Amino acid sequence: MPRTITAFSNPLVKRIQSLRDKRHRREEGLFLAEGLRILTEARETGRVPRYLFFAAPSARHPLVSALVDAVEGSGGEAIETSEAILSKLSGKDNPQAVVGAFDTFDSRLEDLDRTTSPIWLVAERLRDPGNLGTILRTGDAVGAGGLVLIGDSVDPFSTEAVRASMGALFTVPLVRASWDQFLPWLRSGPGQLVGLSLRTDNHYRHADYQTPTFLLTGNEAQGLPAEIEAECDLLVKMPMLGKADSLNAAVATAVMAYEVLAHAQNRG
Amino acid sequence: MPRTITAFSNPLVKRIQSLRDKRHRREEGLFLAEGLRILTEARETGRVPRYLFFAAPSARHPLVSALVDAVEGSGGEAIETSEAILSKLSGKDNPQAVVGAFDTFDSRLEDLDRTTSPIWLVAERLRDPGNLGTILRTGDAVGAGGLVLIGDSVDPFSTEAVRASMGALFTVPLVRASWDQFLPWLRSGPGQLVGLSLRTDNHYRHADYQTPTFLLTGNEAQGLPAEIEAECDLLVKMPMLGKADSLNAAVATAVMAYEVLAHAQNRG
Repeated sequence: MPRTITAFSNPLVKRIQSLRDKRHRREEGLFLAEGLRILTEARETGRVPRYLFFAAPSARHPLVSALVDAVEGSGGEAIETSEAILSKLSGKDNPQAVVGAFDTFDSRLEDLDRTTSPIWLVAERLRDPGNLGTILRTGDAVGAGGLVLIGDSVDPFSTEAVRASMGALFTVPLVRASWDQFLPWLRSGPGQLVGLSLRTDNHYRHADYQTPTFLLTGNEAQGLPAEIEAECDLLVKMPMLGKADSLNAAVATAVMAYEVLAHAQNRG
Repeated sequence: MPRTITAFSNPLVKRIQSLRDKRHRREEGLFLAEGLRILTEARETGRVPRYLFFAAPSARHPLVSALVDAVEGSGGEAIETSEAILSKLSGKDNPQAVVGAFDTFDSRLEDLDRTTSPIWLVAERLRDPGNLGTILRTGDAVGAGGLVLIGDSVDPFSTEAVRASMGALFTVPLVRASWDQFLPWLRSGPGQLVGLSLRTDNHYRHADYQTPTFLLTGNEAQGLPAEIEAECDLLVKMPMLGKADSLNAAVATAVMAYEVLAHAQNRG
């Protein structure tokens, strides 16, 4: 049976709310995700929140019941609460019907099976949580095998990244690794490393992509460092016809990912 | 000669800071843009802030001097200030070296010359300022003739939209119009209206794009309404291989815009 919490001063409410802060996420090993659609998607991939908060009026919704059953069946706790507390937990004026606190998770490079997809995403020192979430969402759409985050990247469990991913955090395998871990792993099997760069004349539309393609996106402000570009099997550039010589990192990744997907589907 | 303001209580500081609020932007007809690169780009397109704030240490930077000269030459006011006040104006801990308050502007449909570009962007009820800014930035990169914002869309002069545009707000002509204004204008000349939709079998990669292409993106949550889809000359869809049947609106627009650009360049 769900318990009921309606006091803002409740210690669990404070603890869950604190997960919007990176330090607390790390200490607790928990992160926040909101929304019936996203939590249901998580449940379908086998991830169930340790704590589930839901508003009383939504308790009869069949998807909410299913979540409550799953949480209680897995030893977690379901908590009926007020909309005001959901608002406080999510930091939004119009909160979703459910907020969950999930155990953080990571895949390891050794867990990735590169035969499962022709496209893999790799991002290096990504700084913006919205970009990270958007890249995961694109990864889901193109059927990417996973996303490898290289170096000092933003926390994929930040509330903003989880939100922007629209649930893809749960569906796209995510690995955090250093470049020195990633490169030997990549070279231990098949895989073409393709870097987005301004320092090449290879048009992205006329390049020879090979399966599996590992698509490498650099830091938002600086792009890829020269020593990482030097390890790429192929550098490609996209046309930039405007005044500024740049694209949003998540946008550039998506245009490239759909290009590689088109090549893979033409071969397939 | 620039005057100096260092008091947080200064009325002009309060007034400029209030421009982060939509109501004040509308009342004042002013909006905020930050950063030397973006303000320089604005200057090169002929837009000079009415008020320019800069930190004392950056006063000798030649691009700052050029901005100060331009502002004073156009009857505006240049104000030397502290980093703390720049922080307050921009709402960021590490403020840029310059913050400007510009007159808001709009193009009208009648101002657009559809012979100037093969690609035009149209967005309907766009709600997220980051998406709007990112779409403008993509528009700059693909050389779009302009962006038409249809219906009740987010304010393009919001600080977040201006930031995400990375200066493209100044370089890509922007029109706000109702659907009932846009459609007759569109039909008064050449132009293929292409809508992104899930309700079609036309693969975006194999479609027959005609010049000029008007690429129409719908609301983030709802996509395009049926009555607007019915007016499109062509509906196309992108492959969605994942669990979720959706892409970020700015990402979908960018993949489509690069596709149309490739077709236009192949013809050209």
